[in-house]
Amino acid sequence: MAEVDTARFLADLHALRRIGAFRTGVHRPTYSPQDMESRRWLMARMEEVGLAPEMDGLGNVLGRHPGPGRKLLVGSHIETQNEAGWLDGALGVVAGLALARAGLAVDVAAFADEEGHYGNMLGSRSMTGALPAEELAAARHAVTGRPLAEALAEAGLAGRPLLRLDPARYRGFLELHIEQGTQLESAGMRSGVVTGIVGARVFRITAIGQQDHTGGTTMAERKDAVVAAMRVLALIDERFPMHVGPRTVWTCGRIAIEPNQPHIIAGRAEMIFQFRDIDEAVLDRLSALLARIVQEVGRRDRCTLALEEASRSPAAPADPALHAALRAAAERHAPGAWMAMPSGAIHDAQVLARVMPMAMLFTPSIGGISHHWSEDTKEEDLALALRILADAAEQALRE
Amino acid sequence: MAEVDTARFLADLHALRRIGAFRTGVHRPTYSPQDMESRRWLMARMEEVGLAPEMDGLGNVLGRHPGPGRKLLVGSHIETQNEAGWLDGALGVVAGLALARAGLAVDVAAFADEEGHYGNMLGSRSMTGALPAEELAAARHAVTGRPLAEALAEAGLAGRPLLRLDPARYRGFLELHIEQGTQLESAGMRSGVVTGIVGARVFRITAIGQQDHTGGTTMAERKDAVVAAMRVLALIDERFPMHVGPRTVWTCGRIAIEPNQPHIIAGRAEMIFQFRDIDEAVLDRLSALLARIVQEVGRRDRCTLALEEASRSPAAPADPALHAALRAAAERHAPGAWMAMPSGAIHDAQVLARVMPMAMLFTPSIGGISHHWSEDTKEEDLALALRILADAAEQALRE
Repeated sequence: MAEVDTARFLADLHALRRIGAFRTGVHRPTYSPQDMESRRWLMARMEEVGLAPEMDGLGNVLGRHPGPGRKLLVGSHIETQNEAGWLDGALGVVAGLALARAGLAVDVAAFADEEGHYGNMLGSRSMTGALPAEELAAARHAVTGRPLAEALAEAGLAGRPLLRLDPARYRGFLELHIEQGTQLESAGMRSGVVTGIVGARVFRITAIGQQDHTGGTTMAERKDAVVAAMRVLALIDERFPMHVGPRTVWTCGRIAIEPNQPHIIAGRAEMIFQFRDIDEAVLDRLSALLARIVQEVGRRDRCTLALEEASRSPAAPADPALHAALRAAAERHAPGAWMAMPSGAIHDAQVLARVMPMAMLFTPSIGGISHHWSEDTKEEDLALALRILADAAEQALRE
Repeated sequence: MAEVDTARFLADLHALRRIGAFRTGVHRPTYSPQDMESRRWLMARMEEVGLAPEMDGLGNVLGRHPGPGRKLLVGSHIETQNEAGWLDGALGVVAGLALARAGLAVDVAAFADEEGHYGNMLGSRSMTGALPAEELAAARHAVTGRPLAEALAEAGLAGRPLLRLDPARYRGFLELHIEQGTQLESAGMRSGVVTGIVGARVFRITAIGQQDHTGGTTMAERKDAVVAAMRVLALIDERFPMHVGPRTVWTCGRIAIEPNQPHIIAGRAEMIFQFRDIDEAVLDRLSALLARIVQEVGRRDRCTLALEEASRSPAAPADPALHAALRAAAERHAPGAWMAMPSGAIHDAQVLARVMPMAMLFTPSIGGISHHWSEDTKEEDLALALRILADAAEQALRE
């Protein structure tokens, strides 16, 4: 069994944590000086463990193993959300370094901008050939609107070629990540073997009514957009549980009401509603159910209702063999203290899954905190995850 | 029957419309130069029709009839919402002038700031002794926060005494107002005799859940404040129709969701919910029903629910005799073309009703437009309303 140096692994994580340190977390937004420093730090570490590092025109860092034969690709991302946690992304990249250090035939990747400062999974999509040139050319900062090209130039990346992965080189992709939830913690588990990354469908449901004064307009005359929106949500609340899978989640997190004034009947209400599941058949069934619900309320109600799919990301099941290797390793290193679970959040692994076998491993998140500087995992659980990952990688490379 | 000069009445309305003209409407916010000019214009007109005008320290204008015996008080307000209609308020004040001109024993009042730029019915509450000194001292502009005292000083009103009405002087109060809705227009009616002004109860319903990521949090773990809020609204939607009166209205016009982001389960949702009815017994019944609904959802749901009455204004039924006089006059001048109806909106008459008999008459609103510069009523319906009002006033003064 490959011997991994968990102390060195933790030391590397803490060293990376110092770059852009913010309280107990880090602040390394994509292409910031801190982010670029962390990419250079990573390349230096790659050289130390015998990988040949390269950084491309988007800041993607790839460290290639020099030996012959098929490799595993291991990685994640290295930039962070603003004032965010020290493990999100960094954990999967530093784990790749540790596996290379242990002599395993792995390439290590840090995909740029998984956190979406400038776009949607720009780095992993670019490296897998899934990023249209027009989208890349038009990309801007999500908040400031600054063109991506400007940020790349300032970061010294302008003009560099873009790296493209060769799927034939790889047995598959492994990503270690902190769980962004409390399922492991609630279940008292130390490790989570990911069954797959859920697909998400996001819808915009709009109710158009008639803005009126609350006092002067009788109930019979009203076209109250809040009432229509509420009736849609009520039917979802009633009927979704009869049609979902065991782990489906569904959420309306945003409702925009116009004018949203206490004494005015709303003329318009727009809801963003989404559901996620590991099974595309479940997602299809729920899409059809949602359409029926909106249609039904539209027929009964005096408001006009519209349903539009705003975005979708396909479900990405884990590769059965890689997943089985992780399960077996988890049971060896943490018997009875691990569980299989879907990933409700989106990861680079979802993009990689389109071109090669993929599997993921989760560490527990203390209190489920994510995208916040106080995010954390116990160090013994980080070390355990590395041992499981190395064991599974060794197994997968042997097959 | 008293002969009213409807041509002069319309001419006065158009003259007042020129002060602060905005498109086809007017812009005379309380204590603006335009508002003060309109108050001086009103005092000059009062003198012309034989009333003794006075303006008090809040800008209230009262024109007293010099003759002996009991009077009717007739009026409304003269300032407007921003860029609002030419009739709202002005109609009731100018109608009073026309009644005085026709020789009827009326006092005419323009109550300051009915439109709430600096407070809640400041003028009519002050003149009826219902405005606490502390509230007056603390009043500020609703948007800018400018202290009322500053605005009064700039308008030249500082230091003037406040007028107080003597209820014993009056047979009652009559207010002519444009309907702020489409009931008259929809029914093809030319005049509305108001049965009373509805009482309103306004509640703040708060659902406190747990903010979480939509992907990583299972349905079983969630405390989704939007779901809890929606369940309250759904029960209201289901049960209120079984307990309301024939003209009750109920509305949720505002929902504040935190953080109101598509991918985040809401941690908090605050709804402003209100209902209005002419009958206090109905309002009491609905208050109790709402409390039961919130309690029921609170018991079933994982969120914590809170219900708080934010404000209430009592229902003000019209005085039976004054109301009967208006009905009789309406039937004489517009047989079959008038209807009895509650006022869903709030008026100075509601405040006056606490100290003297009150009745109101509505003119139709073209398209139901209110608080907008395009507000309008057909001139023949304005003239008709004046004839009905004068006839009823003469009848009431004769009793």
